[in-house]
Amino acid sequence: MPPVLINGQYGDSISVQDRGLNYGDGIFETIAVVNSQPLLWKQHLHRLRLGCKRLKIFALNWQQLQSEIATLLVNQSNCVLKILITRGCGGRGYKITESVITPNRILSLHPLPQYPKSWWETGIQARLCHTKLAINPALAGIKHTNRLEQILASTEWNDPNIAEGLMQDTNDNWICGTKTNLFLIKDNTLLTPTLYNSGVKGVMRSVVIQQAKLHGIKVIQRNINIVDIKQANNIFVTNSIIGIWPIKKLNGKMYSILMPLSFKFLYSDAIQKNKQCCKII
Amino acid sequence: MPPVLINGQYGDSISVQDRGLNYGDGIFETIAVVNSQPLLWKQHLHRLRLGCKRLKIFALNWQQLQSEIATLLVNQSNCVLKILITRGCGGRGYKITESVITPNRILSLHPLPQYPKSWWETGIQARLCHTKLAINPALAGIKHTNRLEQILASTEWNDPNIAEGLMQDTNDNWICGTKTNLFLIKDNTLLTPTLYNSGVKGVMRSVVIQQAKLHGIKVIQRNINIVDIKQANNIFVTNSIIGIWPIKKLNGKMYSILMPLSFKFLYSDAIQKNKQCCKII
Repeated sequence: MPPVLINGQYGDSISVQDRGLNYGDGIFETIAVVNSQPLLWKQHLHRLRLGCKRLKIFALNWQQLQSEIATLLVNQSNCVLKILITRGCGGRGYKITESVITPNRILSLHPLPQYPKSWWETGIQARLCHTKLAINPALAGIKHTNRLEQILASTEWNDPNIAEGLMQDTNDNWICGTKTNLFLIKDNTLLTPTLYNSGVKGVMRSVVIQQAKLHGIKVIQRNINIVDIKQANNIFVTNSIIGIWPIKKLNGKMYSILMPLSFKFLYSDAIQKNKQCCKII
Repeated sequence: MPPVLINGQYGDSISVQDRGLNYGDGIFETIAVVNSQPLLWKQHLHRLRLGCKRLKIFALNWQQLQSEIATLLVNQSNCVLKILITRGCGGRGYKITESVITPNRILSLHPLPQYPKSWWETGIQARLCHTKLAINPALAGIKHTNRLEQILASTEWNDPNIAEGLMQDTNDNWICGTKTNLFLIKDNTLLTPTLYNSGVKGVMRSVVIQQAKLHGIKVIQRNINIVDIKQANNIFVTNSIIGIWPIKKLNGKMYSILMPLSFKFLYSDAIQKNKQCCKII
């Protein structure tokens, strides 16, 4: 197993009193590491800080965290860095009874995930999942560790040729993939679901939106229904590890992977660099 | 720290690769132990089995689990037994890629929780929480470890005289307390929320419903709105550790704790015995 730093010490285990283990009381980031550098670091750190604030996880020493990450990444080849912050060890019961509780910091490196080259070049096959995302404004947007919905959705298929499953919320709005954010192109406009009620505000999603705006593309964040999906000219999914995968086939329907010319920003370094932390087979 | 059995071995830590830690990918039971016996054991076991089935956690050796519990409880004085089952250690990513994954079994004993005698005898003060429960039929009813909603609701008050907070779902139906189930008495009828969309089907809730029916009480499970709460003659909350606490004051409104005569079943051994695993102060 690659090295893991737990509260600054190399190790491989955590107390069974940890609230992350007991209640999913935590938050995480999964970050592409290329040439020993965590990519899009400021954006990941921003989301992590926001998540801690939303979950009221205080008393995390951010300088210490960054110093530990730097230690872990010295001379590392391309890989994935996972930062897992739990509220800490806090007894039995949902209520936090301790006046000060020290969060646990679990920093781990993971080998390059392996994906076929074609998934970037000629697109992926995807499916529409039956498992729905709950409407939960209090938790929407952040990358917390209550992930049973994504786990159950991921159990819906075994075909290794299906790269991703899209998920709708209980109001039948399509929100995201199990591990990716969702974008549609229609009439030269970029559409992506609003994430006020469900889903994770992906770092790569933000980069794509920002780059699109820089390149003069109209970006609309709104509810996306099944008609939008059916009528889209192109569909693609994003995350911080893969960058972008175009969808070529979704529940049997074929989509073009030829993007309009104005979408050449999708091939920019800001978006494409991340896939260097994948092993392309 | 009282003894913890982890996969049959005494210990205090678990691998950082555990999916319970990383994604809240697990399920648990909290059980009153009186005279070395886990109370309402069949009901707890039934819910645990149902939860594992719903979350597709297979390959748990149930005989082994029961044997470990028996070992842990030998000569134990009254306490709380917590059974935590996670899907096991399974790499990074929501998708379960291993064909066989062995669940982790974490069995721990906890000291008697301390509560004032008056909370049983003259009732508790409770509040209405702002944090809402998501509508999530796929997860409703079971006692999984995705508990951020309950945790956030529990942070809403610090007053130690407030014993519990009630939670509504995003459709404004009142569902439960943060750690209890909810019952209303109105016109000699027992009302309790349906739990198809949110909440946990409490073992003590089932006992109360069963005992009420045995005693000829009309029991209605339906959506409960704020008017139902305001118009109730009595309100009480239940769980497997405390048994029953009547509510005497809810967001400033006083309620009678004098139950109708036909509700004497609430003082039966099946319901009251559990509180013996509490330290009454």
